[in-house]
Amino acid sequence: MDSTRPIGVFDSGIGGLTVVRALMERLPLERIVYFGDTARVPYGIKSVATIEHFTAQITDFLLQQNVKMLIVACNTMAAVAADVVRQRAGDIPVLDVIEAGARAAVAESRSRSIGVIGTPTTVNSNAYARRIHALDPGVRVYSQACPLFVPLVEEGWLDHPVTRLTAQEYLKPVLAEEVDSLVLGCTHYPLLKPLLREVLGPGVRLVDSAITTAELAAAKLHALGIASSHAGPAGYRFVVTDVPLRFQTIGERFLGRSLGAVEKVEW
Amino acid sequence: MDSTRPIGVFDSGIGGLTVVRALMERLPLERIVYFGDTARVPYGIKSVATIEHFTAQITDFLLQQNVKMLIVACNTMAAVAADVVRQRAGDIPVLDVIEAGARAAVAESRSRSIGVIGTPTTVNSNAYARRIHALDPGVRVYSQACPLFVPLVEEGWLDHPVTRLTAQEYLKPVLAEEVDSLVLGCTHYPLLKPLLREVLGPGVRLVDSAITTAELAAAKLHALGIASSHAGPAGYRFVVTDVPLRFQTIGERFLGRSLGAVEKVEW
Repeated sequence: MDSTRPIGVFDSGIGGLTVVRALMERLPLERIVYFGDTARVPYGIKSVATIEHFTAQITDFLLQQNVKMLIVACNTMAAVAADVVRQRAGDIPVLDVIEAGARAAVAESRSRSIGVIGTPTTVNSNAYARRIHALDPGVRVYSQACPLFVPLVEEGWLDHPVTRLTAQEYLKPVLAEEVDSLVLGCTHYPLLKPLLREVLGPGVRLVDSAITTAELAAAKLHALGIASSHAGPAGYRFVVTDVPLRFQTIGERFLGRSLGAVEKVEW
Repeated sequence: MDSTRPIGVFDSGIGGLTVVRALMERLPLERIVYFGDTARVPYGIKSVATIEHFTAQITDFLLQQNVKMLIVACNTMAAVAADVVRQRAGDIPVLDVIEAGARAAVAESRSRSIGVIGTPTTVNSNAYARRIHALDPGVRVYSQACPLFVPLVEEGWLDHPVTRLTAQEYLKPVLAEEVDSLVLGCTHYPLLKPLLREVLGPGVRLVDSAITTAELAAAKLHALGIASSHAGPAGYRFVVTDVPLRFQTIGERFLGRSLGAVEKVEW
């Protein structure tokens, strides 16, 4: 396979840009095509059938862009529709944030008691617990849905009394279970890391699946011999289904740098 | 026109059920077809072009159901796409929550200083200020986007310290302007009335556009001679594009009674 082909990364909206950011840092020579379904975001409150249908559409679009690897950078899609992606992808390798997060959590936890936070759909799918138990059946997993974290991040209230109070409320039952690792099971959550560290205290390590996904992608590309070795400037494309108000501001907060030109597709 | 034809009410999701509830109480003999675009909700964070496109689809669907009146029960659609509805509706009368809210606010305000709260798209459209000024150019209008209120209502935190703190923060600039009326410019907000009354104090009257829309609908139906006089049981249909987790629970909280069977359309 031609190693100069891009990596396809997709999410229901802009949260997956935290994964792109980690990929840019870990794999600076790779080309990336990012797809964000901003016209239909958020997925976390939708039914499984609808999420599968949307996921299939996005997968087909990225396969048409001739990607060499697909990364499901949306926990909700990874939780309920990863099989849809793998079926359509054929020989193209597929990674997802849940696989990456589960592996990192099992590797890091000493107490073998792991917390997972995510959207209602991700948590109700039980996908993290299943992946973690497939790796180590003896680990205890405590999950908590945090539906307000996404809107709080998008409001930019990253260090705000409302967000702190919300985090205290959501994390109380998780803390009561004495977990030593907490998986950030939603791509929006890495932006809350400083506040979550404060609320959780020093006894709990945060597992940022954006970073762990980039690590897994690097290992997989090298194992398959398709990592880019081209020293030229990497090419980044950002494709969305809608360019709403505040898109640039919020997107750049996630990406940690300028987004440049954004392409909009019409469906 | 046949007065037994139903009224078509639509929203981006389930918030418009607060308008249906008000219609059921004010006009118990009317049949209602409700359409909620739950697969693509929320609209308040999407672009104008996308909202116009979605609105046109929904309008066409309801016209096919042979409705005698259309009610745009979504402030975001009313703010940016009411003309799309009116163009397609032809002779069928069209009401919208912004028209109704603006009229009621102008009628109720003594100080002629009116506050409006809504989603970012509604507030940025300036639709309330334009409608209010068309009725009375001398009224001062202060608008405030409250993007977290919708997710807080859907989380069910109607009387919660986080919601109170959020309301205090959002309403501080509005209170500073000494308004005497506050238009609830989003169909989710009527569920926050008790908490908002507490935060605002006795000097500010809340304008609930669900109730004012039902009043306007009653007046219009009678003026046109198409109000239903049939004393049989009224028929209610609820059509959505997705039936997500917690739909029944949240929907019944909005409607104030059982939803019964919900139909799902595939697009």
